[in-house]
Amino acid sequence: MNFTAKNTETLLKIMHARRDVRGNSFSDKIIEKEKLEFILEAALCAPSVGYSQPWEFVLIDDRDIKQNIHKNFQAENEKAQKIFKERPLYQTLKLEGILEAPLNIAVLYTPQESPVLGMTSMDKMGEYSVVCAIENMWLMARTLDIGMGWVSILNEEAVLKELRVPQPKKLIAYLCLGYVKKFAEEPELKRLQWEREKKLKSLLHLNRYGAD
Amino acid sequence: MNFTAKNTETLLKIMHARRDVRGNSFSDKIIEKEKLEFILEAALCAPSVGYSQPWEFVLIDDRDIKQNIHKNFQAENEKAQKIFKERPLYQTLKLEGILEAPLNIAVLYTPQESPVLGMTSMDKMGEYSVVCAIENMWLMARTLDIGMGWVSILNEEAVLKELRVPQPKKLIAYLCLGYVKKFAEEPELKRLQWEREKKLKSLLHLNRYGAD
Repeated sequence: MNFTAKNTETLLKIMHARRDVRGNSFSDKIIEKEKLEFILEAALCAPSVGYSQPWEFVLIDDRDIKQNIHKNFQAENEKAQKIFKERPLYQTLKLEGILEAPLNIAVLYTPQESPVLGMTSMDKMGEYSVVCAIENMWLMARTLDIGMGWVSILNEEAVLKELRVPQPKKLIAYLCLGYVKKFAEEPELKRLQWEREKKLKSLLHLNRYGAD
Repeated sequence: MNFTAKNTETLLKIMHARRDVRGNSFSDKIIEKEKLEFILEAALCAPSVGYSQPWEFVLIDDRDIKQNIHKNFQAENEKAQKIFKERPLYQTLKLEGILEAPLNIAVLYTPQESPVLGMTSMDKMGEYSVVCAIENMWLMARTLDIGMGWVSILNEEAVLKELRVPQPKKLIAYLCLGYVKKFAEEPELKRLQWEREKKLKSLLHLNRYGAD
C-alpha cells in the first residue's frame, strides 16, 4: 500500500492534536462499542517484540472500582504534593479523570514464560511493545473525538490487587477515556509554563553524542 | 480540530501497514532532509510525562560506527542463537538492517535531575514517553515509504560507549531507517508461524481480571 502526501499531513495533524485529557474535559457520553473496537484494533496492530503481543486490557466502568482507584490516586498525589511543595502550581492541577471518564482501561504487560525473540539482550522490550500499543490507542481515540488520559500517579501493586490481576503481570498504564467537546490547543503543562518546549536542534546529535 | 471517518480509516490503514523492516528490504536511497524532519517532528509531538520531553536522538550514517554496532549485534545474537537452539527457524532469520539501512538512529532517554510531574509513583514513565515518540516515528515513516526496524539484540552499555553517550542517559531503541520498495503484507514472524496471532477476545477483561 502506498500513502500520499495528504495522508502524511493527516497523520501529523492527528499527532499534533492529541492531548492528555483530564477529568475537567470529559463528557459522560458512553463510548459506543464500535468506537471502542477501533481503539482496541489500533492497539493490536502495534509492533511487538518477537511478535509476542504481550498486552491485556481490563475495561473498567464499575463505580466502586473507580472509587478505589481514585483513592489510590489521592494517596499517591498527597505524597507528590509534598515533593512539589515549592511549586504551588502543582496543587492547582487536575491530573486525572478516573471518576469523570465513562471508561477506564488498565493496560497490562504479560511476561511470557519461554524466551522471547528480541528480548534476550534488552528485557524491557516487552513493556515497550505495550507502550507502542497505548500510543496507537491514543492517536486512534483522537480521530474519534475521544480523549485519553494516562494516570501514572498510582501505586501499581494496589491497582493490580484491586483488579485481581495475577502475578507476574505488570500494570503499564491506567487510562481514562471519554468524549471531549474541545481539545486544548496545546499541552496544559506547556501553556502553564510548568516546562518549556524543547527545540529539535538541542536534541539532535550526529554520529557521536555532542556532535552536530 | 475535528477529524472525519475517512481520517480514522487512513490512520488505521497506516497502523496496519507499518512493519518492522530488516536489512533485506532496505534500498540504499538516502533519506531526504525534509522527510527526516517529518519523522522527527512526529517524535516531538508524542506525549511525555510532565511534559518532560525526555528524548534525544543520535543520527548515525558513519560506516565505522555502524560496523561496530553490527559487531555488537553479532555477539549478542550468538548468545540468542544458543537460547533458541531448539527452534532452527531462529538461525535463518534476518533480524536487523544496521549496515543496509542508510540511516540508523539511537533514541536516548535523558533522566531529569529534579522530580518530574507524573513520575513520583511510577518511575518508568520517562522511558515510556520515549517509546511513544518512537511509535510516532514508525507510523510517520510508513506514510513516506520509509521502513523502520527496531534492533534490540544489542548490548546497551557497548552502544552507549560507542556513541560516547554520557551517563546516566539510557538507550531506549536502536533504529534502522531506509526506503522500502515493498512492505510485507503481514509481520514476518506471523507469516513464518514463529508466534500465533492473539485474538482480542482472549486479551479483554471487564472490571476484574478474568471476567468478561
